Amino acid sequence: MSKTPTLRASDNQNDGRPHVLLACTGSVATIKIPLIIEALSHHDISMRLILSSSASQFLRGQSAEQPSVASLLEIPNLEAVYTDEDEWSQPWTRGADILHIELRRWADIMIIAPLSANSMAKMVAGMADSLVMSVVRAWDTTAILDAQRTNLPSSLRTSTGKKPLLVAPAMNTAMWAHPVTHKQAAVLEQEWGVDVGGWIRLIRPVEKELACGDTGGGAMREWKDIVTIIRQYLDVEASNSTRNPTA
Amino acid sequence: MSKTPTLRASDNQNDGRPHVLLACTGSVATIKIPLIIEALSHHDISMRLILSSSASQFLRGQSAEQPSVASLLEIPNLEAVYTDEDEWSQPWTRGADILHIELRRWADIMIIAPLSANSMAKMVAGMADSLVMSVVRAWDTTAILDAQRTNLPSSLRTSTGKKPLLVAPAMNTAMWAHPVTHKQAAVLEQEWGVDVGGWIRLIRPVEKELACGDTGGGAMREWKDIVTIIRQYLDVEASNSTRNPTA
Amino acid sequence: MSKTPTLRASDNQNDGRPHVLLACTGSVATIKIPLIIEALSHHDISMRLILSSSASQFLRGQSAEQPSVASLLEIPNLEAVYTDEDEWSQPWTRGADILHIELRRWADIMIIAPLSANSMAKMVAGMADSLVMSVVRAWDTTAILDAQRTNLPSSLRTSTGKKPLLVAPAMNTAMWAHPVTHKQAAVLEQEWGVDVGGWIRLIRPVEKELACGDTGGGAMREWKDIVTIIRQYLDVEASNSTRNPTA
Ligand SMILES: Cc1cc2nc3c(=O)[nH]c(=O)nc-3n(C[C@H](O)[C@H](O)[C@H](O)COP(=O)(O)O)c2cc1C
Ligand SMILES: Cc1cc2nc3c(=O)[nH]c(=O)nc-3n(C[C@H](O)[C@H](O)[C@H](O)COP(=O)(O)O)c2cc1C
Ligand SMILES: Cc1cc2nc3c(=O)[nH]c(=O)nc-3n(C[C@H](O)[C@H](O)[C@H](O)COP(=O)(O)O)c2cc1C
Repeated sequence: MSKTPTLRASDNQNDGRPHVLLACTGSVATIKIPLIIEALSHHDISMRLILSSSASQFLRGQSAEQPSVASLLEIPNLEAVYTDEDEWSQPWTRGADILHIELRRWADIMIIAPLSANSMAKMVAGMADSLVMSVVRAWDTTAILDAQRTNLPSSLRTSTGKKPLLVAPAMNTAMWAHPVTHKQAAVLEQEWGVDVGGWIRLIRPVEKELACGDTGGGAMREWKDIVTIIRQYLDVEASNSTRNPTA
Repeated sequence: MSKTPTLRASDNQNDGRPHVLLACTGSVATIKIPLIIEALSHHDISMRLILSSSASQFLRGQSAEQPSVASLLEIPNLEAVYTDEDEWSQPWTRGADILHIELRRWADIMIIAPLSANSMAKMVAGMADSLVMSVVRAWDTTAILDAQRTNLPSSLRTSTGKKPLLVAPAMNTAMWAHPVTHKQAAVLEQEWGVDVGGWIRLIRPVEKELACGDTGGGAMREWKDIVTIIRQYLDVEASNSTRNPTA
Repeated sequence: MSKTPTLRASDNQNDGRPHVLLACTGSVATIKIPLIIEALSHHDISMRLILSSSASQFLRGQSAEQPSVASLLEIPNLEAVYTDEDEWSQPWTRGADILHIELRRWADIMIIAPLSANSMAKMVAGMADSLVMSVVRAWDTTAILDAQRTNLPSSLRTSTGKKPLLVAPAMNTAMWAHPVTHKQAAVLEQEWGVDVGGWIRLIRPVEKELACGDTGGGAMREWKDIVTIIRQYLDVEASNSTRNPTA
């Protein structure tokens, strides 16, 4: 669903506003995305959201904190919400745009919050069987394809000039404690991470005191922290937030 | 489908009976699960069964050895049969149970028989795009989350106190001989196996004399052997089996 | 869809014609497969084609270069076109044929052109959740299961006597440049490649000068080159091509 249904990245090349691509995969923490979008909507940016098929189950208007996609689209500066069907909505012919490529080009930064255990696995394995995973697979990991757009803060690029891809895992404690998670986090941080010249920033889940007395992780980082991290990339401050009433 | 449609693990915490979670993935050997369930039904245990979407194709009542799910449910002590749809049957709201987590908590032991080549690959990759794979991904590999329930035999835990997860691969000989299988079996046995302090027991397929004269593997271990292995964990003997006629 | 709807490999054991199994996965380069099939149709061979669900989106008759499956089947020597549904079209009972196994047995050579980034990932991970991936997973990597059929050129086998599996990746430049591609290509070439005694030949994509001035890869090898490579395995020459008008 979309206010601006089609997307050709080049049409928005010179709008001077940071393009923030958000995505949710199938964790309960998907219910935090409306809060994140609302908080960011006060800045002069342009947002688009991708929902995995599982993530969209959490946003069907079944409770106040779980609005429908239609009501999400009433938030200012959120231009469109995409699901897998949008990739194949029209029979492709030569010259037609390819949605996951246009979204990649359009985005100055991408944030997957929450990242499910399943999508974390697919990302590391290089799979691309959904819209969100196709954008991730087609991300410019080289910094040579997508030139930096004019008038954007330099904080929007990593130290090696790449577009950042932030991921915030959210999963059951046992899922997080599983040794396969450790292997995958190692790839994301030590092979592809921003600190080693890569493009990925892993926003590690929060450790919580568990009922059994042990300490365990897996809960998505507090949504306000995620907003703060995104604001650092955008080089804006919460206190400066003013929404243009005519926007 | 279910005799006891909803599941909250804590409701069955003190029933004193071992909880056996069975699962089938898309191999022809799925037609052995009715025999396994029938054999186990003579013990004082509680069973639940998960079918992957492919596995359920083999149990549609198309022949005597391939009963429908409805007729399977007539076997005593089989409480419910789950498919992927059950995860998302109701729009989730805060506080609602999450099926794969409840099944994980409920289970004292899990047996995937047959484990298809595809599900073996997903398991090692940490994917969780089906109900059975979500339970596997959320398994308590640490032995700190799921406390042992009272009055259960100690044989139900591994030497390091973990809930055992048994997997019995079944696949075409060429699939089994493929080098990718070898890599995956190594992870299951040498990294996550019960013999190295882990939680997985790989019930290796049977080697058979092939038409070409060579020896090949891939056939699921004889179903009676699988029943015997499960009985060892349950600490019961076949000869002791008596069904309470009013059960 | 098929001229010869069912397939039992043993029925075609002694037809004396090379059996060429073609497959397409979800890249735009799928639109080249009609040209490849047409070029090969002039030889005395038998062809079958598998389309992944995404690949079939490109062949729906939406333009002259994108014929429908029905019109593809008018090309001589193309016996059948399969999609995922064909695996499960009939409720399986004991003794029934299994399509991906019959296709594996039938094939003297397999060519996946194009191979999508997603299918490349699944192949290396050993996944088999589609018809094309099931054939790949069940490929005889040992050369002991599928004996060479009589009267076929020896060039149809690798130097170690295996049936060759050719794959021609095709993807966006950023997808190809992603480090995960490099890891996967290394498995395909250095572990499973024909040059190291394996069965896979990776037909590397073409490098192209990009708009940004850098050189990038990812475009499928020119379709005529792919035809030439297949002809070498078939031990036929383009100039020798004559179609039997009654064929
Ligand atoms: C109610 C419910 C809540 C879930 N919560 C989580 C979660 O917090 N984290 C997670 O990794 N998976 C969770 N899952 C499982 C995923 O939704 C499942 O693995 C799904 O296939 C993920 O698909 P995706 O990665 O394509 O979004 C949940 C499932 C259900 C039914
Ligand atoms: C009739 C039939 C029989 C099959 N038998 C097997 C088998 O024995 N082992 C196997 O690994 N895959 C077998 N497959 C392929 C799997 O069903 C396929 O890979 C499927 O995607 C597995 O899905 P799952 O792992 O989610 O259950 C068979 C497929 C068909 C159509
Ligand atoms: C119009 C369009 C064109 C695409 N072209 C490619 C491509 O050239 N290469 C690729 O790897 N993926 C491409 N994709 C993405 C794949 O289709 C997607 O990853 C799909 O899940 C692949 O499924 P399969 O590997 O089972 O065929 C394209 C998608 C669309 C919508």
